[in-house]
Amino acid sequence: MEETAGVLLDFFIIFVLAKAAAEVFQRVRQPAVIGELLVGVAIGPHALGLIDVPLLDTHEGLAMVYEVMAQLGLVVLLFFVGLETRLTDLLRVGGRSLTVAMLGVALPFALGTAFMALMGHPRVEALFVGTALVATSVGITARVLRDLGVLASREARIILGAAVADDILALLALTAVVQIGKEGGVDAGELVVTAVVAVAFVTFTAMVGTRVVKRYSLHLERLRMPNAPLAVALALMLGLSAAAGELGLAGIVGAFLAGMMLAESREQLQLERRAQPIYEFLVPFFFVLTGAKVDLGTFGESGTLGLALAITSLAVAGKLLGCGAAGYGLGKRSMAILGVGMVPRGEIGFVVASIALAQGSIGADVFSSVVFMSIATTLVVPPVLSVLYGGGGGRGRARPREKAGRAAAAS
Amino acid sequence: MEETAGVLLDFFIIFVLAKAAAEVFQRVRQPAVIGELLVGVAIGPHALGLIDVPLLDTHEGLAMVYEVMAQLGLVVLLFFVGLETRLTDLLRVGGRSLTVAMLGVALPFALGTAFMALMGHPRVEALFVGTALVATSVGITARVLRDLGVLASREARIILGAAVADDILALLALTAVVQIGKEGGVDAGELVVTAVVAVAFVTFTAMVGTRVVKRYSLHLERLRMPNAPLAVALALMLGLSAAAGELGLAGIVGAFLAGMMLAESREQLQLERRAQPIYEFLVPFFFVLTGAKVDLGTFGESGTLGLALAITSLAVAGKLLGCGAAGYGLGKRSMAILGVGMVPRGEIGFVVASIALAQGSIGADVFSSVVFMSIATTLVVPPVLSVLYGGGGGRGRARPREKAGRAAAAS
Repeated sequence: MEETAGVLLDFFIIFVLAKAAAEVFQRVRQPAVIGELLVGVAIGPHALGLIDVPLLDTHEGLAMVYEVMAQLGLVVLLFFVGLETRLTDLLRVGGRSLTVAMLGVALPFALGTAFMALMGHPRVEALFVGTALVATSVGITARVLRDLGVLASREARIILGAAVADDILALLALTAVVQIGKEGGVDAGELVVTAVVAVAFVTFTAMVGTRVVKRYSLHLERLRMPNAPLAVALALMLGLSAAAGELGLAGIVGAFLAGMMLAESREQLQLERRAQPIYEFLVPFFFVLTGAKVDLGTFGESGTLGLALAITSLAVAGKLLGCGAAGYGLGKRSMAILGVGMVPRGEIGFVVASIALAQGSIGADVFSSVVFMSIATTLVVPPVLSVLYGGGGGRGRARPREKAGRAAAAS
Repeated sequence: MEETAGVLLDFFIIFVLAKAAAEVFQRVRQPAVIGELLVGVAIGPHALGLIDVPLLDTHEGLAMVYEVMAQLGLVVLLFFVGLETRLTDLLRVGGRSLTVAMLGVALPFALGTAFMALMGHPRVEALFVGTALVATSVGITARVLRDLGVLASREARIILGAAVADDILALLALTAVVQIGKEGGVDAGELVVTAVVAVAFVTFTAMVGTRVVKRYSLHLERLRMPNAPLAVALALMLGLSAAAGELGLAGIVGAFLAGMMLAESREQLQLERRAQPIYEFLVPFFFVLTGAKVDLGTFGESGTLGLALAITSLAVAGKLLGCGAAGYGLGKRSMAILGVGMVPRGEIGFVVASIALAQGSIGADVFSSVVFMSIATTLVVPPVLSVLYGGGGGRGRARPREKAGRAAAAS
């Protein structure tokens, strides 16, 4: 009871400061998400220590509470991004998305692995660093694009499609590297099974799910419960997130697919209006708690700092060049947006590093450097992306749908 | 990440089954909350074990996640109950509420303490059992009243007012008994301070807060953030819940007060419409997770079962007679509603028992019996209250506000 009261106090601090920062950033026409991340950095345990958010090792109970709140926020965010993404729009840019995903996986993996091998690190450690550089965490980019009201732009669609493909490739890379770390080699059969299951899940959900929802969504009004469309949408969101998680994919892939299944029934069911309050309540938790993980103190330590900076540079360069090149022919600005938009590694970098540390495949210095890379690539993207889209995030968040609609109509 | 995926799966199971059960119960014109509680009993770790919800002792991390989700649901529920309660309406029944609270605290305390002393238990143990019988947990009753659409009825208002006063009296009793358990006597100074702080918090929030909100709520539209009234309302809800918790009161007292502060600006700010999705998402978690704590197996053990049944009978009789008598002059039906409505002890019974167990003041058999009492008094009330209000909870939940409005207009 007392601990729960402490948690409520933390939630209050997080929520109030996130909303205040969002207000300030929107007044100076910047994406609200930057404000939320900076609030997290400021009040986190490494800086002011205003909230009890513990480091993962210290208080297991509290740590899980914050992990789950952040994860819920992220799931809701990707659900909303899915809601604004029609499958047909995504298929139209499908080939380009695949190219972006593949080049954006191959180049960072090669750069990271080669660099670590050249520095004399063991083979498994090198492979793990390469793998940690592979997966884009699309949450940050998606939120910035939503804040700016440009989710309907062609670049945004390519990025969203690439992020789904990217996540499947990252899962395969992780599966392979974990096997190498544990058994010294790759079990091709298991890799194929993992690939088939992941692709089948995404394809089935996107293709069949979308049609089923389209056909039956009108019947929802017959239910006795209040707000039945919202209940069904939230159930789909939680169910597909959990399913994706159980298959080893990031939960947010499922949430995105759930949103996309409902995208064509969105207006008729008024889903965004119905779910918006849940978005406003939960999503800030993800960004504040992500910011709270930043330890500015590590910038001061010269030992691992060099390694961290090198890995971060390769992480940025790999996606920038790989994904940017994949946008060849779309013009310089689009190439830049694709490159920058795919840079954030967010929580997926953490996950790879944690697995590697747990099975003893990487050292503490490499772990810290990968965590640094995850955070740095996350913090650097919002302002750059905002500039590339011509600034002006001031009002975008208030009515993202209308603005997205206008952007689509204008393009 | 994997653990978080497991949590999302549990959330999905909880949410889907809660909504399905609510739908079924509304179709047979019963309060949805009964369905949610029964789903919890069925899928909990003591029965089907469909969800991972651990017992409090086993997996600390997961246990806290579920505690916090349930607590959030409860806070949101009491916030909504507050939203439908105007301070002026509450003051009009203030004297009656106080009488209900005082008799409803004195009688169960006397019955519980006397029974345990007569059975030969030590003095401190007897006092703790008396204290565990003192505090009504108003969540269950409030939800049933809301499902039935009768929050505006006179009995409902008396119960809500009594629940706030009751919580202060319970806090004082707990403070005193903890001192006796630890030091053998009561520190009158500390008791007075506790009383003054609690009363001051409630009075100040209710009186001053309500006026401040009334005066400034119109200015909220000037903020740049979307849905500013909702953001401010949620911040108040979290802030006052945390404040109440820090002062040793139940967090839900703060949430109720936050709602009541906004009750007069409710329609103008459209707060219920704005916050309803958060209610629909979070509130079922409290009821399903409460149900999941029920261990039907304990009914089979004859040893503690006798003690548990005796304590439960005294808990029911104490509130039924004490609070019922306090309704003298309102008619038999109102007296019955007041008596039954104050019976549930819910999580507050757990809290007293846990504190007592932790400081070694009660034995394991007494602890189990108090937990049994908490759950039994919680499960028994919804159907009885539903019958007392003339059944028919079928549509009440769909539009509680309109129905409450109609009930108020009709009375």
